[in-house]
Amino acid sequence: MSTPLLTRLRSALGADGVITDPDVAAGYQRDMMPLAPFGAPLAVVLPRAVEQVQEVVRACAAHGVPIVPRGAGSGLSGAANALDGCVVLVTTRMNAILEIDPDNRLAVVEPGVVNLDLRGAVEKHGLFYPPDPSSYDWCTIGGNLSTNAGGLCCVKYGVTTDSVLGLHVVLADGELLTTGRRTVKGVAGYDLTKLFVGSEGTLGVITQATLALRPLPQAPGTVVAAFGSTGAAGAAVSRVVREGIVPSLMEIMDATSIEAVEAHLRTELGAGKGCAALLICQSDSGGEAARRELAAIEQVCLDSGAELAHTTFDPAEGQLLLTARRAVLNALEVYGAWLTDDVCVPRTRIAELIEGCERVSAAVGLRIAVVGHAGDGNMHPTIVYDPTSADELARAQRAFDEILALGLGLGGTVTGEHGVGKIKREWLAREIGPVGLRTHRAVKAALDPAGLFNPGSMFELERRGTDGSPAPSDQG
Amino acid sequence: MSTPLLTRLRSALGADGVITDPDVAAGYQRDMMPLAPFGAPLAVVLPRAVEQVQEVVRACAAHGVPIVPRGAGSGLSGAANALDGCVVLVTTRMNAILEIDPDNRLAVVEPGVVNLDLRGAVEKHGLFYPPDPSSYDWCTIGGNLSTNAGGLCCVKYGVTTDSVLGLHVVLADGELLTTGRRTVKGVAGYDLTKLFVGSEGTLGVITQATLALRPLPQAPGTVVAAFGSTGAAGAAVSRVVREGIVPSLMEIMDATSIEAVEAHLRTELGAGKGCAALLICQSDSGGEAARRELAAIEQVCLDSGAELAHTTFDPAEGQLLLTARRAVLNALEVYGAWLTDDVCVPRTRIAELIEGCERVSAAVGLRIAVVGHAGDGNMHPTIVYDPTSADELARAQRAFDEILALGLGLGGTVTGEHGVGKIKREWLAREIGPVGLRTHRAVKAALDPAGLFNPGSMFELERRGTDGSPAPSDQG
Repeated sequence: MSTPLLTRLRSALGADGVITDPDVAAGYQRDMMPLAPFGAPLAVVLPRAVEQVQEVVRACAAHGVPIVPRGAGSGLSGAANALDGCVVLVTTRMNAILEIDPDNRLAVVEPGVVNLDLRGAVEKHGLFYPPDPSSYDWCTIGGNLSTNAGGLCCVKYGVTTDSVLGLHVVLADGELLTTGRRTVKGVAGYDLTKLFVGSEGTLGVITQATLALRPLPQAPGTVVAAFGSTGAAGAAVSRVVREGIVPSLMEIMDATSIEAVEAHLRTELGAGKGCAALLICQSDSGGEAARRELAAIEQVCLDSGAELAHTTFDPAEGQLLLTARRAVLNALEVYGAWLTDDVCVPRTRIAELIEGCERVSAAVGLRIAVVGHAGDGNMHPTIVYDPTSADELARAQRAFDEILALGLGLGGTVTGEHGVGKIKREWLAREIGPVGLRTHRAVKAALDPAGLFNPGSMFELERRGTDGSPAPSDQG
Repeated sequence: MSTPLLTRLRSALGADGVITDPDVAAGYQRDMMPLAPFGAPLAVVLPRAVEQVQEVVRACAAHGVPIVPRGAGSGLSGAANALDGCVVLVTTRMNAILEIDPDNRLAVVEPGVVNLDLRGAVEKHGLFYPPDPSSYDWCTIGGNLSTNAGGLCCVKYGVTTDSVLGLHVVLADGELLTTGRRTVKGVAGYDLTKLFVGSEGTLGVITQATLALRPLPQAPGTVVAAFGSTGAAGAAVSRVVREGIVPSLMEIMDATSIEAVEAHLRTELGAGKGCAALLICQSDSGGEAARRELAAIEQVCLDSGAELAHTTFDPAEGQLLLTARRAVLNALEVYGAWLTDDVCVPRTRIAELIEGCERVSAAVGLRIAVVGHAGDGNMHPTIVYDPTSADELARAQRAFDEILALGLGLGGTVTGEHGVGKIKREWLAREIGPVGLRTHRAVKAALDPAGLFNPGSMFELERRGTDGSPAPSDQG
């Protein structure tokens, strides 16, 4: 196939930088969210340099063709899903770590660098890049920036935006914007850096990032505690917060998660019969400080009714518990396909959220496992369904939405870290209200007046619904 | 005086909420930056509730009258300075702490709450609000939000934006926008919260903030070290960063600052003869962790050539050193008026900045004291001049600009925490370049199409220069 646009793209990127074969392009047309709609792209482009990104944007602008930027495609909101006839701009070939500056504790990277590769590279300098989404062994920094990714680290170290000093962004007119700085402080102008972080590819294409690093923490110690009720586990989380303890990790797994993981890994987590919830907490403060923090957490767990609490400084034992936590989604595949939700509630409302998920599970007749980042209230209730059954899929979708309503009702947000993308547009509108939505549209129109970047993702551009998005449904 | 606008404002706010007496209004027409231009407002309004703010905005919009929002007026950039004929909107009467929630570690406040009052109120719950600008005993949270204020805490705890979960903002059309959330994580939509933080009153009026709190740290221990050269002090800062130590405070004072403070407080800081720079570092990690951190810092200082290094856990001694550090600007008044600059450089370039300031001082023939937040490279070279001498004022202005050029040349930014306001517009343009400036104007036009909020502050609205700002000069 050849069109003036494709000719221009091939001229800029070379033949191997432009994919139009539908079978190959299909590998780039969607992310990991099963509910999100996706279309067939006109082309998939794989630029190697910022100038090529600029030329792609200018060419698409000239032809009025939408651009959907994406990294590895590990997302869980459909934000990176193709629209029919769009150009998918993949940043994975721009994967250089341009600089690591230990004296100023920063790194400068291209967007295609894999999270784990960056972690490994800076660790050699005794440094630490905190954001650690579950997909950290294959997701890219560009995707992390676009979704403002979180992970297990957030309870102590924040989300991606907290580690970003500055960006290079290709704007809708093809110009290159430089935001932020290399200094750890700075208030010169609007905080455009944090506006682009989490904007899910709707405002521009991030082509470079300057990231703040931290000193490498001490090897963590771990407390694991088993509770006979989710209420007791929730109470323990609240008391840890209230007592001013800041663990470096605080994860929760409910009974369904524990059962699935034990079967999957063929191991005992030691939770015991009748365990309703497991809390896994770590401290990376080192030495006496870690011992003090972990002893305090263990005591809080016991005081809150834990049936068992155990502290270990054995790295292998701690790692096994984390591996178990990270294995939950895969483990659930023994029961069927999984659909993971993402809500964040005030930390005092975690038990109510878990109990609400039990009611939703009973109402829809599907298994729901709740795992999540208890320390910051960010929960991932995960619905298990039979993907070959249209009825089960419909019930899974219903559960997905009811969990979001539950989270909002508890004073929470409809997404703690996965993003809005193409599955939660109506939920975003509900959360932020009409003034919020108008403000979003105004910002979008200011930076991308032609609606070139990922149109119809995150929110509808106009109420008319003629924005080129592939499906009118907001929840997939 | 009565005009239809004034009648409407008085009707909305009551007679005591609208000041038109020029002598009284003069108390609200400028902040603490001597170089910034200011005008005579049409009126000063002091709303008590968000509905009154909305009515002020709607009334001013209807009459095309600019609004300059302000808090206590402790700013150092002229951002809160009145324009001729504008309405100054003072938020100091909206000073309620609406909620403190220890279980979720957050507070909800109105913008007029004084920083120190909030600190005291949350401390009763064992909680800590980190941002601590020098003016913390009289500046307001609203002003802190608008300037993204920093302080001594930043090296460990970040700037104001790092403590904000959500905002209420009155927009240019009088509508109330709610941004953010009460949860510690959340990625629903654009990060409008952090866009409004630091926007210096140019995008809307902040009427409420939800702030993240931290556990109250341990009582700090302190290291003070005296260096015979600024280069050695700078090297010590770099090595502390490189060795992965995160002090809770790391301040630097040069010889001029030390001399002024010793005279002012009639005390000896123990720096000794020939001391070129003093580093004051604290750890609030408590117990063995603090002892380890402070011992490591003391050793780094000695290894970097400190002539003297001393560690104390005596709170009174630590407090005296901090009092000395905070007294520098007042102490300089013995020599004349002070004009404090604000640049932030990569932490490895601090010594070069101080040495550059010595050259600037010699070139303009004025005393320049350098104090600053060494731990994050944010320096406040402070020029002393005779305010009755037009020639000295002109030389002070020249030094002010040369220090900014120096900071930019070292890879820094023209403002680390004070903001751009009405004195650094051209410097902002120079730092962010034409694409950055265009992007700022696009965001401004999207949220404030009529240019109602603080027009001409931070950047010129248009290149035409007919934006209603009081003076064409960008550097005062």
